[in-house]
Amino acid sequence: MSLTGIIPPVVTPLTADGDVDVASLERLVGFLLDGGVSGLFALGSSGEVAYLTDQQRDQILDVIVRTAAGQVPVIAGAIETTTNRVIERGHAAVKAGADALVATAPFYVRTHPTEIDRHFRAVRAAVDLPLLAYDVPVAVQVKLDPAQIVELARDGVLAGLKDSSGDDVSFRRIVLGTRDIPGFSALTGHEVVVDAVMLAGADGAVPGLGNVDPHGYARLAAACTGGNWVAARTEQDRLADLFTIVDVAPVATASRSAAGIGAFKTALMVRGVIATNMVSAPMRTLDETETDRIAAVLRRTGL
Amino acid sequence: MSLTGIIPPVVTPLTADGDVDVASLERLVGFLLDGGVSGLFALGSSGEVAYLTDQQRDQILDVIVRTAAGQVPVIAGAIETTTNRVIERGHAAVKAGADALVATAPFYVRTHPTEIDRHFRAVRAAVDLPLLAYDVPVAVQVKLDPAQIVELARDGVLAGLKDSSGDDVSFRRIVLGTRDIPGFSALTGHEVVVDAVMLAGADGAVPGLGNVDPHGYARLAAACTGGNWVAARTEQDRLADLFTIVDVAPVATASRSAAGIGAFKTALMVRGVIATNMVSAPMRTLDETETDRIAAVLRRTGL
Amino acid sequence: MSLTGIIPPVVTPLTADGDVDVASLERLVGFLLDGGVSGLFALGSSGEVAYLTDQQRDQILDVIVRTAAGQVPVIAGAIETTTNRVIERGHAAVKAGADALVATAPFYVRTHPTEIDRHFRAVRAAVDLPLLAYDVPVAVQVKLDPAQIVELARDGVLAGLKDSSGDDVSFRRIVLGTRDIPGFSALTGHEVVVDAVMLAGADGAVPGLGNVDPHGYARLAAACTGGNWVAARTEQDRLADLFTIVDVAPVATASRSAAGIGAFKTALMVRGVIATNMVSAPMRTLDETETDRIAAVLRRTGL
Amino acid sequence: MSLTGIIPPVVTPLTADGDVDVASLERLVGFLLDGGVSGLFALGSSGEVAYLTDQQRDQILDVIVRTAAGQVPVIAGAIETTTNRVIERGHAAVKAGADALVATAPFYVRTHPTEIDRHFRAVRAAVDLPLLAYDVPVAVQVKLDPAQIVELARDGVLAGLKDSSGDDVSFRRIVLGTRDIPGFSALTGHEVVVDAVMLAGADGAVPGLGNVDPHGYARLAAACTGGNWVAARTEQDRLADLFTIVDVAPVATASRSAAGIGAFKTALMVRGVIATNMVSAPMRTLDETETDRIAAVLRRTGL
Repeated sequence: MSLTGIIPPVVTPLTADGDVDVASLERLVGFLLDGGVSGLFALGSSGEVAYLTDQQRDQILDVIVRTAAGQVPVIAGAIETTTNRVIERGHAAVKAGADALVATAPFYVRTHPTEIDRHFRAVRAAVDLPLLAYDVPVAVQVKLDPAQIVELARDGVLAGLKDSSGDDVSFRRIVLGTRDIPGFSALTGHEVVVDAVMLAGADGAVPGLGNVDPHGYARLAAACTGGNWVAARTEQDRLADLFTIVDVAPVATASRSAAGIGAFKTALMVRGVIATNMVSAPMRTLDETETDRIAAVLRRTGL
Repeated sequence: MSLTGIIPPVVTPLTADGDVDVASLERLVGFLLDGGVSGLFALGSSGEVAYLTDQQRDQILDVIVRTAAGQVPVIAGAIETTTNRVIERGHAAVKAGADALVATAPFYVRTHPTEIDRHFRAVRAAVDLPLLAYDVPVAVQVKLDPAQIVELARDGVLAGLKDSSGDDVSFRRIVLGTRDIPGFSALTGHEVVVDAVMLAGADGAVPGLGNVDPHGYARLAAACTGGNWVAARTEQDRLADLFTIVDVAPVATASRSAAGIGAFKTALMVRGVIATNMVSAPMRTLDETETDRIAAVLRRTGL
Repeated sequence: MSLTGIIPPVVTPLTADGDVDVASLERLVGFLLDGGVSGLFALGSSGEVAYLTDQQRDQILDVIVRTAAGQVPVIAGAIETTTNRVIERGHAAVKAGADALVATAPFYVRTHPTEIDRHFRAVRAAVDLPLLAYDVPVAVQVKLDPAQIVELARDGVLAGLKDSSGDDVSFRRIVLGTRDIPGFSALTGHEVVVDAVMLAGADGAVPGLGNVDPHGYARLAAACTGGNWVAARTEQDRLADLFTIVDVAPVATASRSAAGIGAFKTALMVRGVIATNMVSAPMRTLDETETDRIAAVLRRTGL
Repeated sequence: MSLTGIIPPVVTPLTADGDVDVASLERLVGFLLDGGVSGLFALGSSGEVAYLTDQQRDQILDVIVRTAAGQVPVIAGAIETTTNRVIERGHAAVKAGADALVATAPFYVRTHPTEIDRHFRAVRAAVDLPLLAYDVPVAVQVKLDPAQIVELARDGVLAGLKDSSGDDVSFRRIVLGTRDIPGFSALTGHEVVVDAVMLAGADGAVPGLGNVDPHGYARLAAACTGGNWVAARTEQDRLADLFTIVDVAPVATASRSAAGIGAFKTALMVRGVIATNMVSAPMRTLDETETDRIAAVLRRTGL
């Protein structure tokens, strides 16, 4: 399996009571598949993984794997503080039938390069799934070292990288350092520069905004793959405009997590894909005024 | 219940296989009680809470509550990323018989003051235990706002604070702002300045180093309470010297978590309280040379 | 010369046109001397050193040295990005007749422990004044290493430390590591915990708030020196209440520099010591409403 | 004047005594002009501006302006802590005949969005030169807000941006928000992703590495401008390999500033353009072994 193209981090529809809205999640997976995505990232940051109980995580992964039904690979986040806890979630992913695992560096604790090395090696040894490193310093406080990523790729520990570090230099080095490793996937999490990062050698993208407009991202990826860079840029510029929905909820009243995930869910509600725009506690759900403003952006960008 | 005096964050002895070493944990609790501590903080950062599976957490809390047998209160960490996950651990703490709960601000996610407010209120409403806020920006990336702590205290949401922020100004404001609230406990996590912080109005301390020398910390707290500030300082200066054990493992090869927790465990092994100095993956355990150096510090400081 | 007691960082009174208000500065120095301070810190952060041109800096230092007239030592900030620029300001300090120099680690640039070592040694070698290190990570992004401070003290490079790091552990280590070095001064910049830090072994304090109430700080230092810790705490608690003036200007409209320096100047204007509360561009000056609120705090705290 | 293409931040050759090496600087400017650069950025971070005295800054700008002799525009850094100090340097730039000014947000001080707004407006009002904002959070601790940059551009305050923030999302927003403003220049400082950023809409680049291989960067920019994205990527990949010279000096013994600037200077010395690879105090100069390793990279990349 080699992961390329658009692999959105699937958001988690909730009912008004805060339970997983299974029917909406099934519709969302269908919508994404119809949009032409190449894979599904379950239990990522946009999927509210850090807000969900283990029981909810199991339920969600089960629905996604079952609904995807083998049409595209499902990669599962095992987002936990340290090694043994990640391995526990890895075993749950195996049991649910996921195709690959995604793990970050340890967090909450103060960690060390040697620990990060042992961490990924131990997770890979314990869980029989291809492993992708998730580089997300804004969440875990540490930036993965590109030389270490390349070494772990070369040793067969890592099958890929999801880069949400915003560090172009690092990403370019990893791309250059791994291009002779068959099947290694370098994926970017930055949804407004997919054209640029694919020019720089990325294999694909994991755009949270891909939930809202999978068709647009699929066109973008196809343009990149086909070498139509000007067309790619035009599509990307439209999607960058669409991405302004994440700024609708103001900094004064919403965390950036609530504003972003809330915007994706609100847009999907407006588009008729999911039933509510509820987000998990302690985030607040976007209100009617904000919903109207998001609907206006959807119209402006042709959705 | 008002929490005062020395409430060490109990370390978690492990067997060579990485399991919880129940016999060593029982001995450790006995050692701490004998040392004169006023309470026990189970499942804190020094207790490796972020490295433990939920099953291990349940087991450890059960052993500590059972061994303490009501002689001193047991406060339990519910260290999880967000509200619903903290509440799950809170229910486990109730079931195990803990006397109070400790929770941080949300982490991994990007949070917001309004979310922190809702977070503590929701946890308190859902879990029938006194709630202490744990201010630990080094782990969760956000510093709790002293005005917010005071307001939550005044509203009966918070029964106390464990401050590991290193922000003296903030702590002083909380002490001044809560001194008319009966039973509110302002505790410091900074083990080398307990004398100073108690002069400034702290009710007590949660010193990781208190695992190693509970008798010394109990003398220190008693000197502070008795107004013998010069005696307190002398004891604190000795304990500050003892605290240099956390620097034995070098920065080049060990995380600060591994160096600190590893030093406490190694010292307890040298003192004959616990059987091994094993720490959880992906940390490394301190080696023989490091053990010898720690033993030398113990001798130098009279232990 | 050994620096002990209260050494306020003298604020810089400005005219409505933004020039140095020499008459107000002379009155302020007189007020501080009358208040019983043991020294004057010219051209520190509270003195707006980073906002002043070199010509203004020279003028201010000249006024302070001349007005102090040898009654207390004047220590001069040489706050510049790197070694050669610090040395230039050091030579200006020598020329003006300052008694000691204060320098930070390099800033704006990315620095390194070996560079910090060379930096302080080069400054000391080039400027014939006792040198104090200023540990201010909030401004320069790097925390000075306590072991390095102790080594530089032992080598005769550093005659003291002004600690604004908020790191109690580090400060305690420096105090313990230098107490056998004659004349080394460990000064704290944290004005609300002077009692606690002096209990922990500080030689004195550099409180920005000491501009506003030098008499109070002098009483506080005397109580500490005399071992009257309860009296010290009572005075400190009053001063901590006075310190709330720095929160009058809201976070939404003022930087923390503008809110803090602006509050000190406004309080001095209300007390009749200086003529205006003007601050340097691009900060904004506190308005009438804010001035009224600060006046109320002054009344509440007996000034 | 509209700034496009390659505008390298000119490094500052030094003599063995640490003085400005005028002959080397003249040769370097000639080498860059021969290489096909479109402009010269004097007194930038790579030019060691933060290490230079004002007298050296004046001398350097004078040499660069005189040697460029109007063939390409010279933009001058006015890198100072706050408004009045920036304005002083701005006046020096006018006097020296620079064509534009570059300024950062205030640093060392804690600043605020409203202050950043006033800062750029005041500098532009006081200095009669087009003004570019320099977004460099690693140096000044604050990330410029893209909406604010767009507003300042629209108000005629800013004529351009030099982006060294590494924040792709922000940069894309600024590009999209300013593309209807004639003459506004969006320049990237990230030398290993120039192809990607120009695809995303950048007008040009300010690559430190452009000192070492101006011809390569000129080819890269021409390929981008001509829409030859695959050729651009190939050239960029070679330059990304060349950029590994900045890792030759190890983290254990050199700051990232010393390793980067030192590598550029060493490569220019090896290429025969400048006489020494001396860097300013307190940085250390790269040694012979490091020089040999850099020479090997130059050979490997065809220089």
